[in-house]
Order: sequence, then structure tokens, then C-alpha cells
Amino acid sequence: MSDDRYVVGVDFGTLSGRALVVRVSDGAELGSAVHEYPHAVVTDALPTGETLPPEWALQVPQDYREVLRVAVPRAVEASGIDPADVIGIATDFTACTVLPTTADGTPLCELPAYARRPHAYVKLWKHHAAQGQADRINELARRRGEAWLPRYGGLISSEWEFAKALQVLEEDPEVYAATERWVEAADWIVWQLCGRYVRNACTAGYKGILQDGAYPSPEFLAGLNPAFAGFVADKLEHPIGQLGEAAGRLTAQAAAWTGLPEGIAVAVGNVDAHVTAPAAQATEPGQMVAIMGTSTCHVMSSTVLREVPGMCGVVDGGIIAGLWGYEAGQSGVGDIFGWFTRTGVPAAYEAEAARRGISVHDLLTERAARQAVGEHGLVALDWHSGNRSVLVDHELSGVVVGQTLATRPEDTYRALLEATAYGTRVILETFRDSGVPVEELIVAGGLTRNRLLMQIYADVTRMPLSVLASEQGPALGSAIHAAVAAGAYPGITAAAKTMGRVTRAAYLPDPERAAAYDALYAEYLTLHDYFGRGANPVMKRLKEIRRSARISAGREES
Amino acid sequence: MSDDRYVVGVDFGTLSGRALVVRVSDGAELGSAVHEYPHAVVTDALPTGETLPPEWALQVPQDYREVLRVAVPRAVEASGIDPADVIGIATDFTACTVLPTTADGTPLCELPAYARRPHAYVKLWKHHAAQGQADRINELARRRGEAWLPRYGGLISSEWEFAKALQVLEEDPEVYAATERWVEAADWIVWQLCGRYVRNACTAGYKGILQDGAYPSPEFLAGLNPAFAGFVADKLEHPIGQLGEAAGRLTAQAAAWTGLPEGIAVAVGNVDAHVTAPAAQATEPGQMVAIMGTSTCHVMSSTVLREVPGMCGVVDGGIIAGLWGYEAGQSGVGDIFGWFTRTGVPAAYEAEAARRGISVHDLLTERAARQAVGEHGLVALDWHSGNRSVLVDHELSGVVVGQTLATRPEDTYRALLEATAYGTRVILETFRDSGVPVEELIVAGGLTRNRLLMQIYADVTRMPLSVLASEQGPALGSAIHAAVAAGAYPGITAAAKTMGRVTRAAYLPDPERAAAYDALYAEYLTLHDYFGRGANPVMKRLKEIRRSARISAGREES
Repeated sequence: MSDDRYVVGVDFGTLSGRALVVRVSDGAELGSAVHEYPHAVVTDALPTGETLPPEWALQVPQDYREVLRVAVPRAVEASGIDPADVIGIATDFTACTVLPTTADGTPLCELPAYARRPHAYVKLWKHHAAQGQADRINELARRRGEAWLPRYGGLISSEWEFAKALQVLEEDPEVYAATERWVEAADWIVWQLCGRYVRNACTAGYKGILQDGAYPSPEFLAGLNPAFAGFVADKLEHPIGQLGEAAGRLTAQAAAWTGLPEGIAVAVGNVDAHVTAPAAQATEPGQMVAIMGTSTCHVMSSTVLREVPGMCGVVDGGIIAGLWGYEAGQSGVGDIFGWFTRTGVPAAYEAEAARRGISVHDLLTERAARQAVGEHGLVALDWHSGNRSVLVDHELSGVVVGQTLATRPEDTYRALLEATAYGTRVILETFRDSGVPVEELIVAGGLTRNRLLMQIYADVTRMPLSVLASEQGPALGSAIHAAVAAGAYPGITAAAKTMGRVTRAAYLPDPERAAAYDALYAEYLTLHDYFGRGANPVMKRLKEIRRSARISAGREES
Repeated sequence: MSDDRYVVGVDFGTLSGRALVVRVSDGAELGSAVHEYPHAVVTDALPTGETLPPEWALQVPQDYREVLRVAVPRAVEASGIDPADVIGIATDFTACTVLPTTADGTPLCELPAYARRPHAYVKLWKHHAAQGQADRINELARRRGEAWLPRYGGLISSEWEFAKALQVLEEDPEVYAATERWVEAADWIVWQLCGRYVRNACTAGYKGILQDGAYPSPEFLAGLNPAFAGFVADKLEHPIGQLGEAAGRLTAQAAAWTGLPEGIAVAVGNVDAHVTAPAAQATEPGQMVAIMGTSTCHVMSSTVLREVPGMCGVVDGGIIAGLWGYEAGQSGVGDIFGWFTRTGVPAAYEAEAARRGISVHDLLTERAARQAVGEHGLVALDWHSGNRSVLVDHELSGVVVGQTLATRPEDTYRALLEATAYGTRVILETFRDSGVPVEELIVAGGLTRNRLLMQIYADVTRMPLSVLASEQGPALGSAIHAAVAAGAYPGITAAAKTMGRVTRAAYLPDPERAAAYDALYAEYLTLHDYFGRGANPVMKRLKEIRRSARISAGREES
């Protein structure tokens, strides 16, 4: 069909970037390509050899440009379309992934003067070395009663823009002084494409503490460090672009990189989780999308502004322009299952799985699926990575109650699956209790492949589960934004209706199992509050004891 | 040396009997032999083919005679002594292991009329099908305020004489009616050796509820079942023999079986755990012996009678004639470590252990031993087999608190080792708080081979740990009783001083580690009381949910 038009969505993940070519008229996914970042995640030493302390995680911006140069043309080629028919491109990124640049967007690490300075590089979302700065931000904000703090569930993360910038200031003042812009990678890549810096509303709100049009005040920043007072005015503040708008037009240089037509629309930057919502047609208030992978991120739009305990953030236009965008999360989900499968399952299971050509996950799931609800006699808390849901406490840890000499690996595995479902139910109920009702639950991400897990979530939450019907949710979501930025649809909601794809009510709650789970959920809640709300702070004390023991044993920095 | 004299101790375990030849003058162990019971533990079907319900565990008495016929002569042969120089034989047995006999000691199962009747066989200690009867015994005893109940920590076990006898009455009244004697196997084997039935003070007290010279009254028994009113008078009551006394002299028939001289002393029967005390020279008040295997049994003599919460029993002359014998226990110890090693350790560990020719236990221990106290960040409750220590609640179950994605198998393994040490400390402190001080802690049993475990016990309890220095504690203890029964020593204490063997203070508590463990023990205690004393009966509810789920799923009898 000669009048078909196309868009390209590019999803920048933790280890690679993926480009996807999508037909504007119906959202058909026609071709894709992945390019792995040559430097992956830089944790031990810079490319120039300088070693890094623990908890650091950097990236190299040139790797992102390579995705544009390699993955985009390959995806176009794989799709078989004529690149001249592409009308727009959009990107999404991990966040908060942030870098220092000059006024023209040159990363400091690309200047010879700073190539050997760790703080001149991109700080990846999982760079966790700014915890001390984050603690001080939270402490001071609580003390001063900053109005923006409850918008983030009472906790600013060490992963976000302010903590990471403050770390630069305090550990490498020269790099800080040379930083003319402190830029989200989500916006930097758009800058590379269209030659204009537009700060997207999503990361500015969720990661940059932009609330009601204002950032934390110079007085607040000076309280953290006098030299930090001017941070917002000097390096951060910048005009905001709404999601779905065009940030600009593809430059000649970017057209040469990508093989796409110069001058097509380049959408405002976005975040991988948030951009998935329109891919799953979740653009209406009350449609919550849970992106389930190693961790789970929940995003949902609403007409109302409420302070929901423990949410990661609420941002005006954070997901869909014109609605309040809520983000919540579970810090450990798939990674807990992975940890158990790696460390807690005996050789006989691994051998059986290998013999049958299935994964250990599949074997455990198959055995666990044969059980009636409650048959394993266990209840677990899913806090192996802390709790970022309602309790907002990264010092919490995992618990399993009820093991006997008859407990088998599949029993504990199922209890861990269920624990994450209870964790989701806590979030749903907290949103409802806060006046932000969740009307529909839609799941996306790698864990949707586990049918037992999906059924458990439906039974535990007593909600029908809709499933994103694309393997490439973020890239599809970006493509939708590209189509809107190019003017093919009047807005994200309209575009998502046509281009998004979801299997509605793919899993229905079974009333009998749901009733059985109510009893187990009550046990979960009791333990949740006992261990999580101060009745017995044993988990914090154990972590403190662990830290002291490791320091005494010379195994860790203090 | 032509004037040396010898004794034979025979230890009847769960799966085999072991005979040991010991020199009277110094306790030297000269030869031993093991004979496995041909029928082992009968759990599925009688030798005649009749199938058994769940929870049953029977044995065949002829297997015990075979030990006398096979193991005793082989041990004598292995020792190289002249059997004519043997002056006595003594036996110890698992308990409560009990069987119905005629008035002359013939087991009912050996009568053709009853050979196909499950209730005519020996009920092994771990026959757990009389739980319903035990529950009724405890319920009625509590209601009536029976004075003997606190002597057993408030709980009569389903394993003991009354519950098992009541099960016979209610499930096979004909076998019950034909039962002229309800005999502990510990006494039946002595009856086989000397032709006389003597009921030993140890099992009569601990398993037969003989307190202050009286059994539960006919009124009490009638309250359980009118047909049970005459049980004591008709089938149970019998003259008591004190430990260390001679029950009689070896009969011609038993001399023919064993190859030992007719007419030598046969000691009063005894129990494997209790007879170990003199083997470890623990005959004085306050010397507690912990026999550590799949479970741990604690025995200690004292001059005072106190009601210690949760103790398994206190019996006049229960360990040493003339002293109060206390018994306590931990229902799961080595079996918890075994369960974890079988079900919770990945293939890479099994492969490394195999490659190095060591056990998975050894590998985990080696890795766990490298850690500083508290470094794993965990605390566990050792209730995988319930709690028979202080809480006396078999519906309790295991807990691990503090796991993270960094937790390794050796971390959890060490936490389980430590949990059992905390469980021991709870028992020690309960005895002290009850006015029955523990002056010395001596360990015996298979787990003493694990040096890390031993050091943990010393550090956690802050007590020097003495270790029984014989691989064959019960058989050596029996040999000591044989020597006393034969008149070679004036009493058990004197014989134990010469014939017993113990390494005093083999493990000393390290003050720094002990201080670190105090903090973790405090966490254990808080969780112990929270889960164990009613604040959160989640474990009971989980077991109830599990039972209901299994019944609904058709996997279990109601």
C-alpha cells in the first residue's frame, strides 16, 4: 500500500537499545533490531583505566549514538519499508540516567580534559553511590516540611537527579563547575536527534522534583551544601516539553546516522516504563500498568491529585499530558525468583530441567501449579531487595514462615511468587484507600510469560488481568509517541486505541482460589506490618549487625 | 591379663542394634558389631501384606532377638576376648517403643491369630498415629488438673504408652483384650535375656506417667474411654527396677543365643539417651548431656524437683537412681540441616563437594566457618519439626528472616546451625530460671563431628563444651550398667568415673563472638515469643490452611 506511513520507536535499556518500525495506521510491528552497548555498564573501571568505588554504575554516551547508527537502519531494513515513508521517531530511556554536558550538549566525558574523571560520565539509574546525599536530602526536606516530599511517597531516591548532582559537587567540584547542563539521557538522545534540548515532563517531574512548576528552592539547596544553592538556576532549569509533543525535527546529521528522512518529527523524550502505558492502551484514568521484570513498576493516570503512601511519584502529565501520572513500584520481583532458582534448588531439579530441555523456572512453575492454594503451608515477605511500595524502606529484607521438613523447593518458589502478588495487592489497596481507584490492571514485561504467576496475580488481587500483547512494549509505546508528534493522531489516547495492543481479561480470578488467598493475604499483611512498621525492627538491626561484622572482618568499606 | 573381666552393652536403635564389648577395669572398647533389623521400620505394609495408614511405624520383635544372636557373638569375636570372662550384659532401647504381649512375654504378633493385625506389632517411638488419643489425654488432664501433667511440661506425647494403648483399644478391641502386658521394648528385651519381666524406672516414669508411685487413676482413664479404666491394673502395673540393678541372670536360652555364660547379670532396661549420661561421666547433679542427632535430647540429674516449662519429663531415678532425672529436647536439629542440604543447595555446590570428595554438609560448613558472627544478616527459628523445648507446640514451623539477593546457601545453613544453638540456650536458661541450674554442658551424638557447630554452641551458650569421647555412647553407657549390675562397681557414678570418657571443655566460648551472639539471640527470643506465644499464631493457621487444602485436593485423610 503506497500510502502507508511508518514511525520508529527506540527503547534505550540498561544493556542495549532496540529500534522498532511500526505502521501508523494499525500499529503493526514490521521490523526491529537490537544493538548492545559496547561498554555495557561501567562498574569497575573507566575505559581509560581509572578504577571505580563500589556501588558505581556509569555508561558511555557514544554507545547511545551507536544504537541510532546501527539499530535504526537495521530495523528499517528488516521491516522492508521504504525509509522515505517514515514520518517520525521517538525514544524512551532508563531513568534517572543522567549526565553532565556543556551548553551545546557535549558530554563532559567526551572532552579530553575530563575523559579520565568518573564524574564526567553518564550515571546510570542503578548508580547507588549517592545514598549519603539522598539521605541528607530526605532528612532536610522532612525537617523543613518541604511540600514536594509527599509527592514522592516521602522519599527522594539516591538514583535521582539531585542526589547524583550533589555527589558530583562534593566529590569532583571541577567537573561540577564545568557542568553547564545536568541532562537526563532521555533528553540528551532527543537533543542528538533534533539538535534542541527539551526537558521532558516525565523525568523532570519523577526524577527532577519539578512540582507545581517549581524545583526545590535555593534555600533548601544551600542547606545541603552552600555551593549547591544555584544548581537549579545554573544547570537544571529548562523549558519543559509535554509527552507526545515534537521536540524538533530530525537534523541532517541524525538523518545520516539513522537513514531516516531529514526533518521528520522527533518526539519529546520519555521513560521506558511510562511509555509502555499507551502501548497497552492504558491511557484512561484508573488503568494501571504493571511492568513486571526483575522489579515491577506500576504506572497509572488519574484526574485527581492525592498523596498516596509510598508511591514513587505523582507528576502532572507524567504519563499522559493533562492527567496526573502516578508511579509506584516493587523493588524485587523477578530478581527474587531468579535468586531462589540460582541458589535454592538442588541438583536433581537442575538435572531434570536439563533433561527435559526446560528452564528450572519452568520446572518449579510446573510443579507449583499442581498445588491447591495454601497447600504448601507457607507465607513469605517479598522484601529481598527492600520495600519501595508502601513502607519505603530499603533496609527491609525477606522472610519465609512455615517451612517444615516436608517443604520442597517448588513450595518455597510458589510462596515467593505469591508474596509478590500480595505486594501488588497492598499497592492497589493503598491507591484505592487514598482516593485514586484502580479500575483495571494490565500487566507487561518478561514475567507475563509465566501463566501460573499471572493466574496467582488475578486470584490474589481479585481483578481480571489484561496483558500487553506486544513483546516490545516500550518501543511500541515510543512509536505511538512518534506518530502523535508527527501529527498522525490528535493525541496519545487516540493513537493508543489504534496502535496499542492488549488482551483484555486474559486471566480471570477464580472465586474459590481468591477466597483462599484472602486468608493468606491477611497473614501477609500482619507480617508486613509487624516487620515493616516498627513493631519489630529486626531486619534493620540484622543489616546493621551484618555491616559491622563485615567491616570488622575487613570485607567492606565503612 | 588373665584377670580382666568384660561386659557387653547392646544399643537397640531405630534401624539396627549394636553390641559393644567393654573392659570393666577401664572402659576400653574392645570390639563391636552392628546388625540391621531385617524388617527395619514397617510403615507401609505388614510382613503379611496388610497395608498401614499414614503416620504408622511398627517393628517386628524377632528382629531384636536377631541382634542378640548375631551382633553379640560377633562383637565378642571382634574383641578377641574369652566369652567366659564376660560378667554382665545390659541393653538400651529407643523409647517409647512398646508392644502387647501375653503374660509370659510372647508378642501378640507372634501368635498366628494376630499375625495379620497391625495393632499386635511393636509400635516404634515414631509411630504418630495416636495423636488424637494424645490430644484427648492432654485435654482431660488439663481439665481435671491432674498433678502429673506439669511433670511432663504440660504435654503427654502421642508417642508414649497411654496414647498408643488407647489407640489399640479404640481401633482393635480384640487385640487390646488379648493384651496381658503392655511392655516397653526396653523391658521386653531384658525379659528375653533373663526370663523375668522388670519394668525399668526410666521408661515407667518418662513414658508411662508413673509419678510418686502412682499412675493416672481409673477415673481419669474412664474419662477417656470407659473400657480403658482398668488399663493400668490389668496390663501396665508391674514391679519397678532401678537403673543399674540386675533384673535377673542370663537364661540358658539367651546364653545359647549370645554365646555368653549362663547366669551372668542382666541389667534393668534403659533408654538410649539416658544411658549415654554415664558414658559421658555425667552422673552428678547439674551435668547436662545433649545427645545431638536428627533431634537433640537433653538429660540431666538434679537433687531438686521443679516444674520446668516445656521439659519432656522429670522422673525419680530416671537417669541415676536416687536423683531426679530431667529430660528436655529439641524436636528438630540434624534433620533440619539434612533437609536444607538435600533441598536447598544448588548443583554447583553438590558438584564441588563431589569433586573434592567431601559431603555437602562439609562444604557448607567450610564456607560458613569463614564468616564473622552476624555477617550473613539472618536469624532463623529452628521449628521445622515443631517445638518440644519450652513452647511444647508441634504446630510451630520454621522461619528465616533477613534473606536478600546476596544471601548464599552457606549463609542460610549457618543461620540454621545457630538457630538450634539458640534453641539450646532457651532450654538452659529455662532450667536455670526454674531453679535447676545447669553447671556443665556435655555433648554427644553424631553432630559432635561438626566442629563449627560445636564452637557455635559454646559461643552462643557461653559455656565450655565437653564432648563424649566415644563413638558409641549408648552402648558404652549400657556396658557401664552391666558392670554395676554385675557388682563390679558400687554404683553408676563410680563406674562412670572409670569406664566413661569425656573430653572436658573441648570448645571454649570466645568472649567477642559470644557478645555478638547475645545480640542475635535477643532477636531469636523476640521472634520465638512473637511466633510461639500467641502474639501471631500464623504458623498454626498455615498448618490448618495446608491441611484443609490437602483434604480438598484429595491428597490426605481428614
